[in-house]
Amino acid sequence: SFSAIALASQCSITGLPIVRNISELPQDNYGRPGLSHITVAGSVLHGMKEVEVWLQTFSPGSHTPIHRHSCEEIFIVLKGSGTLHLASSSHQKYPGKPEEHLIFPNSTFHIPINDAHQVWNTNEHEDLQLLAILSRPPVKVFIYEGWFMPHTAAKLKFPYYWDEQCYQSPQKDEL
Amino acid sequence: SFSAIALASQCSITGLPIVRNISELPQDNYGRPGLSHITVAGSVLHGMKEVEVWLQTFSPGSHTPIHRHSCEEIFIVLKGSGTLHLASSSHQKYPGKPEEHLIFPNSTFHIPINDAHQVWNTNEHEDLQLLAILSRPPVKVFIYEGWFMPHTAAKLKFPYYWDEQCYQSPQKDEL
Ligand SMILES: [Zn+2]
Ligand SMILES: [Zn+2]
Repeated sequence: SFSAIALASQCSITGLPIVRNISELPQDNYGRPGLSHITVAGSVLHGMKEVEVWLQTFSPGSHTPIHRHSCEEIFIVLKGSGTLHLASSSHQKYPGKPEEHLIFPNSTFHIPINDAHQVWNTNEHEDLQLLAILSRPPVKVFIYEGWFMPHTAAKLKFPYYWDEQCYQSPQKDEL
Repeated sequence: SFSAIALASQCSITGLPIVRNISELPQDNYGRPGLSHITVAGSVLHGMKEVEVWLQTFSPGSHTPIHRHSCEEIFIVLKGSGTLHLASSSHQKYPGKPEEHLIFPNSTFHIPINDAHQVWNTNEHEDLQLLAILSRPPVKVFIYEGWFMPHTAAKLKFPYYWDEQCYQSPQKDEL
């Protein structure tokens, strides 16, 4: 069908231009209110094997889920401000009450492997725009319903929201 | 001595703030004319193990060396414009004449593993500012004196310019 062809071509990593205009890349909220996500360079969309970059914009009051992953993640704040919630307690039973850190334009922070974290746009007047850089893509995210949910109860979301459409399991890929 | 103490503290990865102001991070040309380099998040300076981010500004006419590395590298152009020279010939004897690609604000590109490349600010009127994101830090760079130098003659520069001051070999670290 036409849509299958369109999908296949949207998901193909062959014939990508070497230099891409970020403003022309697919942008969506992937079902998450207040979010705009662009995969700038990714495993599923662009064939990256070791590192992936996202450009994300959070409207006032919006936020990521509380989550952890076993890869490294670096953030760079391009615009706006907000709050990083970070629980450095991956060796405890549950994350517990997180530390709160203000984030601001031209700030950077990284998330230690497996630490539960959440990024909030706590600025009522401005969008929060940031780059997120992750190792070992595609990311395997464990989501918590609250800070006192046990680590073992956090639920794996894989493929992640923006990887769902184009992700193919390695088995399928081999067919 | 005082300078040894100052150096030790500048090179220590303990006690770093979680959120850092990029404008307040060390910035230097590390002996390369026309360059401003900031390690936003790095292996040697911040203890990253899987990914590293640089913010670099090239004055008009300045450029990187012709080089290759076996890690992935993603660029994001924040300001200015220029030219990417890219030779996809890692399986040949030498890079050969590179392809030239225009780069522009809000563009992104990544360098296939081991492809020789060079980024130029070819805009006479404006600085070129970009983010470089690399996997598997600290980077091991092989530098070519020209596009027809054999791959085997390219010279390893390790630690790289901005890693020199604080890099300690694993053996020394163990003392
Ligand atoms: Zn995360
Ligand atoms: Zn490079």
